[in-house]
Amino acid sequence: MPKALQPHPDRALPAGEARDIARRIYQSVRDLPLLCFHGHVEAALFATDEPFGDPADLLVVPDHYVTRMLVSQGVPLESLSAGGDPREIWRAFCSHWHLFRGTPSRYWIEHELAEVLGVKLAPSAETADELYDEISARLAEPSFRPRALLDAFRIELISTTDAATDDLAHHKALAAELPGRVIPTFRPDALVYVDTPGWAENVRLLGEIAGQDTSTYDGYLEALRERRRAFIESGALASDHGHFSASTEPLSDEAARAVYADALRGEAGAAAEAFAGHMLFQMAAMSAEDGLVMQLHPGVLRNHSTDVLDRFGRDRGYDIPVQTEFTRSLRPLLERFGHAEGFGLVLFTVDETVYSRELAPLAGVYPTVRLGAPWWFLDSPDGMRRFRELVTETAGFANMSGFVDDTRAFLSIPARHDLARRIDAGYLARLVTEHRLAEDEALEVAADLAYNLASTTYRR
Amino acid sequence: MPKALQPHPDRALPAGEARDIARRIYQSVRDLPLLCFHGHVEAALFATDEPFGDPADLLVVPDHYVTRMLVSQGVPLESLSAGGDPREIWRAFCSHWHLFRGTPSRYWIEHELAEVLGVKLAPSAETADELYDEISARLAEPSFRPRALLDAFRIELISTTDAATDDLAHHKALAAELPGRVIPTFRPDALVYVDTPGWAENVRLLGEIAGQDTSTYDGYLEALRERRRAFIESGALASDHGHFSASTEPLSDEAARAVYADALRGEAGAAAEAFAGHMLFQMAAMSAEDGLVMQLHPGVLRNHSTDVLDRFGRDRGYDIPVQTEFTRSLRPLLERFGHAEGFGLVLFTVDETVYSRELAPLAGVYPTVRLGAPWWFLDSPDGMRRFRELVTETAGFANMSGFVDDTRAFLSIPARHDLARRIDAGYLARLVTEHRLAEDEALEVAADLAYNLASTTYRR
Amino acid sequence: MPKALQPHPDRALPAGEARDIARRIYQSVRDLPLLCFHGHVEAALFATDEPFGDPADLLVVPDHYVTRMLVSQGVPLESLSAGGDPREIWRAFCSHWHLFRGTPSRYWIEHELAEVLGVKLAPSAETADELYDEISARLAEPSFRPRALLDAFRIELISTTDAATDDLAHHKALAAELPGRVIPTFRPDALVYVDTPGWAENVRLLGEIAGQDTSTYDGYLEALRERRRAFIESGALASDHGHFSASTEPLSDEAARAVYADALRGEAGAAAEAFAGHMLFQMAAMSAEDGLVMQLHPGVLRNHSTDVLDRFGRDRGYDIPVQTEFTRSLRPLLERFGHAEGFGLVLFTVDETVYSRELAPLAGVYPTVRLGAPWWFLDSPDGMRRFRELVTETAGFANMSGFVDDTRAFLSIPARHDLARRIDAGYLARLVTEHRLAEDEALEVAADLAYNLASTTYRR
Repeated sequence: MPKALQPHPDRALPAGEARDIARRIYQSVRDLPLLCFHGHVEAALFATDEPFGDPADLLVVPDHYVTRMLVSQGVPLESLSAGGDPREIWRAFCSHWHLFRGTPSRYWIEHELAEVLGVKLAPSAETADELYDEISARLAEPSFRPRALLDAFRIELISTTDAATDDLAHHKALAAELPGRVIPTFRPDALVYVDTPGWAENVRLLGEIAGQDTSTYDGYLEALRERRRAFIESGALASDHGHFSASTEPLSDEAARAVYADALRGEAGAAAEAFAGHMLFQMAAMSAEDGLVMQLHPGVLRNHSTDVLDRFGRDRGYDIPVQTEFTRSLRPLLERFGHAEGFGLVLFTVDETVYSRELAPLAGVYPTVRLGAPWWFLDSPDGMRRFRELVTETAGFANMSGFVDDTRAFLSIPARHDLARRIDAGYLARLVTEHRLAEDEALEVAADLAYNLASTTYRR
Repeated sequence: MPKALQPHPDRALPAGEARDIARRIYQSVRDLPLLCFHGHVEAALFATDEPFGDPADLLVVPDHYVTRMLVSQGVPLESLSAGGDPREIWRAFCSHWHLFRGTPSRYWIEHELAEVLGVKLAPSAETADELYDEISARLAEPSFRPRALLDAFRIELISTTDAATDDLAHHKALAAELPGRVIPTFRPDALVYVDTPGWAENVRLLGEIAGQDTSTYDGYLEALRERRRAFIESGALASDHGHFSASTEPLSDEAARAVYADALRGEAGAAAEAFAGHMLFQMAAMSAEDGLVMQLHPGVLRNHSTDVLDRFGRDRGYDIPVQTEFTRSLRPLLERFGHAEGFGLVLFTVDETVYSRELAPLAGVYPTVRLGAPWWFLDSPDGMRRFRELVTETAGFANMSGFVDDTRAFLSIPARHDLARRIDAGYLARLVTEHRLAEDEALEVAADLAYNLASTTYRR
Repeated sequence: MPKALQPHPDRALPAGEARDIARRIYQSVRDLPLLCFHGHVEAALFATDEPFGDPADLLVVPDHYVTRMLVSQGVPLESLSAGGDPREIWRAFCSHWHLFRGTPSRYWIEHELAEVLGVKLAPSAETADELYDEISARLAEPSFRPRALLDAFRIELISTTDAATDDLAHHKALAAELPGRVIPTFRPDALVYVDTPGWAENVRLLGEIAGQDTSTYDGYLEALRERRRAFIESGALASDHGHFSASTEPLSDEAARAVYADALRGEAGAAAEAFAGHMLFQMAAMSAEDGLVMQLHPGVLRNHSTDVLDRFGRDRGYDIPVQTEFTRSLRPLLERFGHAEGFGLVLFTVDETVYSRELAPLAGVYPTVRLGAPWWFLDSPDGMRRFRELVTETAGFANMSGFVDDTRAFLSIPARHDLARRIDAGYLARLVTEHRLAEDEALEVAADLAYNLASTTYRR
């Protein structure tokens, strides 16, 4: 017999005597609007406002949390990729639903199915076809168009992430139609790693779109400044930097010019990583001038399997974290901009070892630094709980960024914010039961974590 | 007055409202048979089936968890070593029983004394002699012979760990007498670290037993293949690799041949570590061919005190963990065999920092990789709990190896499995109380963790 | 309306069924005397026994936990520094009181205000002036003089930390007036980092005060030995070493002499770090001879902001931890002195990753090694709880140092010990509720952690 899908009203709240307090705290923030300052939904989604595709295309194929788990248990990635039969993909997903026990994907998808899509049965081999048809019908309704969901989800603001060379055409339209609600984020990664395939072409495109001569390092910097201005005009509040390491050691102008010239000739070689660190420093310098809040999330070895990259492309679940260092790496940047008026830096990590050792001590003293929410694999019930326990005592609550959903999966956004609000409620309730915080204080902090801190961090 | 020894029926289960659920989960798996796919009990124990020696020889002298704690509080190691007066050793242990408060040794030994040996009093200076006599009498009973205990412990299968040069004589006898119940594991470490004392002699022995000419690298590889075949014929399902680092970078054939030739002349020098990494890659290649599941447990600096090594030998409690890296180190191996049909890799660590950062992300995507149970110092109540909390959200339950006891102490095997089942019950009960998992799901997962996953991981 | 300041009697105790047990354990140790073997209060405070200054000077300006949090939220450090208007500084602190929610500073200061100073209202912009006047009046009372507070706080012994070149004049007076109650600790850091500004002058001073010729390395060692004797005569029981790394690799005598000679000429350069490691080894050699217990707390990058250092000096909250290694680093020292009669080593860290991986395994076998209490940022409710959970299972309780307050803030000492006793009570109560420890055992362990272990570790 198919199982019912009934997310419990108290899910992810702590058991025991903390529960009642946690419930009250959660209730007080549950319906606050969502601020989504760091995400990966495409601007085109809102610009065109077309209906979503089929269930597989919406919930399985683009979600690397989902595909990686299926692959890990022997489902071939080729059978889960765009171009396959969507109903077959959906069946593969439903028949492996048990694999998600204990994972945040289980929580998010249950929330999406039950609370967004109104599904009443749990996925299984048995229910796959029924769910497929039901969801397909739902997605065809006008109330499930992207813009309608923006309202239904109470999303006050959502930020996309856009290549520095993006023409922002969708954002220009959106700025007129939904002013201040869908904004771009400036992501220059493809322009600062001089040894990535296509770098020279990207730099050429940059010059073209910025109207600058990027055949020289100085023209390249000017073009970046120009694009930042364009992003700001389209509403951008932040830049986003996904570097391999957190190094921010600047090169001399001469050295930077030399590496740049070498790179254009395809000869940057070993200097590429140093140039990327140099460019983080330059981006901070520009941020201090133009006010874009700088977001840094280092420490991931992308595309661990070259074969998967070659056959299926990027973002397929093969990005694996590595140990990351912040104290020494950020020092050059913080020595220069750590107290700079108008500068802001939000730090993310997938390496929990730096929470209490490096990130909380840094955010707990530099007025420009805030700690980003638990990122990627760590955006999970126990992951978020550990984050609070490991950073709060040194950094306090006020040096946090507030929640950041960081997702391509638009339908999962309410689930992600909801889960974070529940986990924070549970953490705060524990402090209350241990008489480390009064309940009225906990209520104030909960609102800060759910809404206010994101607003001040990103200086809306 | 002597204290009673009464292990509580609810020991190691969580308090609070999770307890009732935890009890039900634990009860459902408590009596499942034991699968012991990774251990260090000697095959001779079962082949000869002779009675155990005295209490000191059984419970103190060979247990480095016990001797290291006594040494740390000033009991000289010489007074705890084989050849000493066993009654004196036993007295030293009993009079320091309080030192084990809060440690897993306390739990294991209490279980062994009370539930296996029927002892009613806690160890102390006062009870030492009485316990010594009582245990000695018990060990002389036929029902305490090793094979009888195999049955009493409900051990369905137990694997020993054997040097690649072992002649497997005991295993050949056991295969006939206890078919499929006591099996060997192929451990070639002494043959791949070319700078360890005795390496050349081991390689000569390898050639002799395998009937190959190991004076060349190619003959050496062939001899290893041959020994793997012999192990498989004796029932082996797995190989075991205790490397210092997890590096798996292969050398070219030419480079490997050169290091090997140098090593035979005693001139391998700095290339030894690189050759060990190369051989991990070669072992994976052989595993992909012959199906032995590869177990890797890196990251321990063995014999931290040279003086202790010289005076008392290996495995005396002076092996200390170091930081370990997996993401980059395993990449060469996983690029080649990570999706290979028939290949299997189980990863262990004594460095908890890699749980959420590297191991769970790797096991959560590569279909050939499973996460081994918490190893060595981490095979403890809070250690096992942290493991579940740190890996489950990213790797799910299905990518775990199931419990592995990894012990020389045969009498502790039921205690170790029992403790793991209790801790897992407690973890799952928490998920149930937090409405993150339904109780019927938790019961299924508990059986997987206690029994089924070990079976599928090691492909019995 | 101003809020009342009423620390709850159960604060920092666990909720649920562990609370009653935790209460009983806490009550059993609450009133034990305080042993403060590692602190940074100045000897002059007790020697002169003058009244404390104003509230800002007592509770804000010298407390880098407090100033760093205010700075992190935009209060300029210049407005919080000595020389400023104390009432304005106090107002800034009170009006930002909410920033300390969730931090140990909140706990400590609440305890100081309510239980030491008798304040009834929580700090706020509204209450700042009233509190300032009330505290000022209180500090003028004779019962608030430092020596009177020594009694009121039940401090049985307090150790200061003193430069090796300190003339110990205050300590000589105190040894006569308060024998054995206020003792010095030998801290030679300024003499072993040959590349720090002022090193040569410090070495000259060392020669002068020790009556030795420090123009040679051998005279320098002899001068250090001489100063250690002088400290021991003034009651010292320990030395204290705040190195950047934990390296203890000795140089040859020739190499050490050469670095020393180079350093006197200002040419030590890259050898400075190696020389510091060499000197840790030498300090251990001297400890093994003279019995001073060696305390090592490595792993902090001091003065992360050069600008803050230049403008405001050291110890202003800009010291940030880095990853630290112990297993390999301590090996040379432990190979030589790890089992030496009379030697003692207490290890501290701000890198939690080494708790279970390196420190507990080392302290759990070497009879000379004890684990120091959670240090600095980790001296916090959740930090202390994690410490117990991460080290106890491998090291047991007997290999711990007992609590160490490590503070410049004299008034916070009772709060710090009280918080540690509460957290330990909570941890032990959990073990009792999980039937991992009997309550009578927990009571014994609690007394060890609160009092006895410090006494045996520092060999009073």
